[in-house]
Amino acid sequence: MNKEYLEFAIEIAKKAGEIMIKYFTEDNGANYKYDQTIVTKADTEINEYLINKVKEKYPTHSVDGEEKQFGKSNYVWICDPVDGTAMYARHIPTAVFSLALAIDGEPIVGVVYDIFTNSLYTAIKGEGAYKNGKLIKVNNIELNDKRSVAQYDMWPASEYNIFDAIKKLGEKTYFVSIGSIIRASMCVANGDFTVAIFPGTKHKNCDIAAVKVIVEEAGGKVTDLFGKEQRYDKDINGAIISNGVVHQEVIDTINKYLKD
Amino acid sequence: MNKEYLEFAIEIAKKAGEIMIKYFTEDNGANYKYDQTIVTKADTEINEYLINKVKEKYPTHSVDGEEKQFGKSNYVWICDPVDGTAMYARHIPTAVFSLALAIDGEPIVGVVYDIFTNSLYTAIKGEGAYKNGKLIKVNNIELNDKRSVAQYDMWPASEYNIFDAIKKLGEKTYFVSIGSIIRASMCVANGDFTVAIFPGTKHKNCDIAAVKVIVEEAGGKVTDLFGKEQRYDKDINGAIISNGVVHQEVIDTINKYLKD
Repeated sequence: MNKEYLEFAIEIAKKAGEIMIKYFTEDNGANYKYDQTIVTKADTEINEYLINKVKEKYPTHSVDGEEKQFGKSNYVWICDPVDGTAMYARHIPTAVFSLALAIDGEPIVGVVYDIFTNSLYTAIKGEGAYKNGKLIKVNNIELNDKRSVAQYDMWPASEYNIFDAIKKLGEKTYFVSIGSIIRASMCVANGDFTVAIFPGTKHKNCDIAAVKVIVEEAGGKVTDLFGKEQRYDKDINGAIISNGVVHQEVIDTINKYLKD
Repeated sequence: MNKEYLEFAIEIAKKAGEIMIKYFTEDNGANYKYDQTIVTKADTEINEYLINKVKEKYPTHSVDGEEKQFGKSNYVWICDPVDGTAMYARHIPTAVFSLALAIDGEPIVGVVYDIFTNSLYTAIKGEGAYKNGKLIKVNNIELNDKRSVAQYDMWPASEYNIFDAIKKLGEKTYFVSIGSIIRASMCVANGDFTVAIFPGTKHKNCDIAAVKVIVEEAGGKVTDLFGKEQRYDKDINGAIISNGVVHQEVIDTINKYLKD
């Protein structure tokens, strides 16, 4: 059954990629939401497409899309149609599509599609993580290794201000902010990045559901900002997505420097 | 004559783009230099190609490439073969090629090529800035405008640690670090970003020469980290690349928070 769910998710992802490309170079209809993020035509169109497909194929399931929701079930399709919208709207090709199926809050199938480099990341819980069908693994690099690259993304509207912790961790590792926590998390999954830190956005959980299953199936670790497990079908408490090796050090540093 | 120089620079840029794409998806031969940056086969091959072309066409000129230099003249071709190499080596499509001709330290022709979105940015001093032949202009957005996106990129090896200033400025604007100061500066030139901040790298100036002429021809402002004009054919003192409107505020904040 999970394999069928994955096939369904991949079908949606491929269509989402087409929609993203369609609006990427033309005027993409950006306008500004209350929370300073940008909704584009692509976000709206992909979210709508997903809801129609789920209604058709799994009418008892529900959909938790970033832009629009549908139904109420313990089977939830959690979707961020375009993660990294601010980059996408500025013609920077780091945005991705993300979709997970969570049962009782636990993601069991995850798909992330990066149309710009044609990279499809997939995972079923217990069955490994793949990029374009090829098994992927996290790296085993420490933060003070010169190969280490880390990601964090700080909006003025972030739930937690972890700037002081980032400053401290930045003494060891190179930090980037490529504008999509999901794209960065796929870099963790395939061994290119060491850790990705998500300081949270109020009332928003869709960013991390697919990441949870893909990164953990690649051998990494995903928790909330304080090292705890959490449900992924409701508001999450930030997230640390790591190769496992650096996980505790990052959490300890955040706990030490985090001001309320 | 400047038009001929520009045509020459565009020819090099197009070839550089081909070389970048060739190595982007395959194993790109990354290895680690002393300063924690990554040199790839693409860097080396592009740098070599440029030197051969300059020797052939302008044998009295010199070349200041990031990887290799040639000659000694007041006409200097300043080149970063792949800016954003750490991203490039990790298959993140934000790296660009950059080439400027500086005469007596002043860039008079600049070309930046982003092969991933097929965007060619060009400028001749006094003749405007263009993206794929279409005139571009900086925006007129203040930092506290919700549309403002700003760039900084902090290596552990950066010349200046401006983290405290970034934290302060980050209360107003969204900051990203897309891994290439030149790509980010082109976002300033075409109105997508408000400012890009380059905290400097010791013994390295090639990043900003083409940016200087392109961004200023697009109506923006480029100075060192403290608001001063500088030569671009020797080691530079960091750089602020802005839409002009926010320039002084950024410099004042950096001066206030910068610790030696």
